[in-house]
Amino acid sequence: MNKTVYLDHGATTPTDPQVVEVMNAIYLTDFGNPSSAHQFGATARKHLAQARATIAARINAYPEEIIFTSGGSESDNWALRGVAYANRTKGKHLITTAIEHPAILDTAKQLEKEGFTVTYLGVDADGLVRLNELEAAITPETTLVSIMAANNEIGTIQDLAAIGEICKKHEVYFHTDAVQALTKARLDVKAMHIDLMSLSGHKIHGPKGIGALVIKKGTRLDKFIRGGHQEMDKRAGTENVPGIIGFAKAVELATAEHVAYMQKLRDHFITRVEKEIPDVKLNGPRSDKRLVNNANFSFQYIEGEGILLHLDMHGIAVSTGSACSSQNLEPSHVLTAIGLDHDMAHGSIRFTLGRENTQEELDFTVDRLKEAITKLRAFTAMKAEKIYDASEHDHH
Amino acid sequence: MNKTVYLDHGATTPTDPQVVEVMNAIYLTDFGNPSSAHQFGATARKHLAQARATIAARINAYPEEIIFTSGGSESDNWALRGVAYANRTKGKHLITTAIEHPAILDTAKQLEKEGFTVTYLGVDADGLVRLNELEAAITPETTLVSIMAANNEIGTIQDLAAIGEICKKHEVYFHTDAVQALTKARLDVKAMHIDLMSLSGHKIHGPKGIGALVIKKGTRLDKFIRGGHQEMDKRAGTENVPGIIGFAKAVELATAEHVAYMQKLRDHFITRVEKEIPDVKLNGPRSDKRLVNNANFSFQYIEGEGILLHLDMHGIAVSTGSACSSQNLEPSHVLTAIGLDHDMAHGSIRFTLGRENTQEELDFTVDRLKEAITKLRAFTAMKAEKIYDASEHDHH
Repeated sequence: MNKTVYLDHGATTPTDPQVVEVMNAIYLTDFGNPSSAHQFGATARKHLAQARATIAARINAYPEEIIFTSGGSESDNWALRGVAYANRTKGKHLITTAIEHPAILDTAKQLEKEGFTVTYLGVDADGLVRLNELEAAITPETTLVSIMAANNEIGTIQDLAAIGEICKKHEVYFHTDAVQALTKARLDVKAMHIDLMSLSGHKIHGPKGIGALVIKKGTRLDKFIRGGHQEMDKRAGTENVPGIIGFAKAVELATAEHVAYMQKLRDHFITRVEKEIPDVKLNGPRSDKRLVNNANFSFQYIEGEGILLHLDMHGIAVSTGSACSSQNLEPSHVLTAIGLDHDMAHGSIRFTLGRENTQEELDFTVDRLKEAITKLRAFTAMKAEKIYDASEHDHH
Repeated sequence: MNKTVYLDHGATTPTDPQVVEVMNAIYLTDFGNPSSAHQFGATARKHLAQARATIAARINAYPEEIIFTSGGSESDNWALRGVAYANRTKGKHLITTAIEHPAILDTAKQLEKEGFTVTYLGVDADGLVRLNELEAAITPETTLVSIMAANNEIGTIQDLAAIGEICKKHEVYFHTDAVQALTKARLDVKAMHIDLMSLSGHKIHGPKGIGALVIKKGTRLDKFIRGGHQEMDKRAGTENVPGIIGFAKAVELATAEHVAYMQKLRDHFITRVEKEIPDVKLNGPRSDKRLVNNANFSFQYIEGEGILLHLDMHGIAVSTGSACSSQNLEPSHVLTAIGLDHDMAHGSIRFTLGRENTQEELDFTVDRLKEAITKLRAFTAMKAEKIYDASEHDHH
């Protein structure tokens, strides 16, 4: 089998051909700058308005609350810095969690260096924030709570409505990094009392280099990129019109049927792995508390790297931890936060499915995975024996 | 003539079909995340390295000095804030000019609010910085000089080599916003002693939403977007691989022949306008001190808006001032800086040519322009007469 099986949709997704098609028309024909007064500008503005409306409708926001950015990382940096500085006369305390994306955690650490205080909430064994702990952490100095909608490594979906309720009650801003959740889990900024939300195009079969920060009307936050008056005078820089149109198209193309399909695939995959491979642990929650396309396993006695390489040789693309920290030898901060020891954290593999995957591909993956695990565990056992032999030998 | 004539390449450019072609292959096939350990990641990393090398070679930088960003505005914001904060123990003084892009000017103004001091150098009637004034402005507190390579409104090309020499002598960092200059004017970071340079894709027939900050090895600057370890750990966020590949392709496609061709077109256009339209002033310098694709005129007695609308009705796309400030009723800060009075600044139109324009298109434009000017001036004269009549009438 020369075919590839891409199971790393949490890292990025293939761009949908329909997305590419709408972008091509913008690149080649309707290429104007939305700030231009002439007809090319007017056409670009029309496209921009439609895209904004499409994305807004999906999350129950107003179109003018969608501010396009270069992606999830910019949105996360902006949300934290923007709120922290604009509201620093009220207080200099922020709350987030130990399992956020590095774009949140590194920005929070930087804000600490700049004189802010940050509380990093722990999570339970499934990766869920404890609501009583959140509420207890809020002080009169707190200005922002930032909790991701769905975790990129273990797929935990937080109870956003309950978190939003608490934030509203205590009058602190609520930001959620919804990069992994968009189109795969319920997002309703009004019902969930979300003030700020980070979104990204390339995780949902849209283009890379485009995202949004959803900013509820009236939210006080400083600008992040200054200059021209683009994006309701909130984010400077010529709008990435083709990227924006492609992003909106990707949102439009993502359906409830895809969600149901991926959930079915995921459950089939999890069931087979748990049944056919011994000494395996599913990291993160089950059923509807878990992202429909995520399966994260720790395989005891072996390293994730070895599994990844074996699968890669068979054309199967998976990830150890998140792509963002893959060049890093530290165990995943998420797996550590849910209580895994060093060995189990290092033996973990993340499978993130997409709507284009088939059950056949997943069955092929389980079969190759079984081979890999058997081989690697035999090797580990052999190494252990050799060490034993060597120490025996030393004995003589 | 139903055809359109696009003469607003300073605002944005049509994406070259060859650029779109290479991007499509990335979107659809080589869509991997460069941070991924598997084969999709490896392919993406290979593309990224090639693009970096292509762009580096063009400006005589090392590949690892090219850090991709979301565009010129992000690069400008980053350069100023990054250097200002990383070097604030040395001093808190920056130098820039009165004719910079808003992404520089607004960031500088913000830094002033944060406790930095900024000197805004004036320019001569052609828009050129006076080198003795620059040198006199440098103090032991100065950490950065930011002067744009070529002005977006009037096309003035600064003497970057001389400016770089001064900065090197006084050991201050030199940043240049080269968004308009790239591929159209000489840029050599080594020969010109440039420490930081902002670049953009969509001004050179590449995609929107992609740019770069060129950072000379050893330059001290803080991060702007934090999170993952992308871009030599300098700029977090999944790399916009298709945008980057498209940007590099656009650089590759831009040739010296295009430059010579645009210069010839520009000079033909300027000659005809100056010869055939009375009471007109070319704003900015002539010949090789001027960007090859820029012509900016003030037409006495009338408003630029009226000319723009008349030309737009004939399918000709031009700009009043820069696109970034077109929704602004203030006269252009650039035209004010070169000494134009309010009326002349308001009567200005910017024509920015592209390699796909033809002499026929420019001749058509001159003809329509003559009509517009004649009509608008007659209207102005009529209004003046009416006011005169009215005051006569009042007399009775």
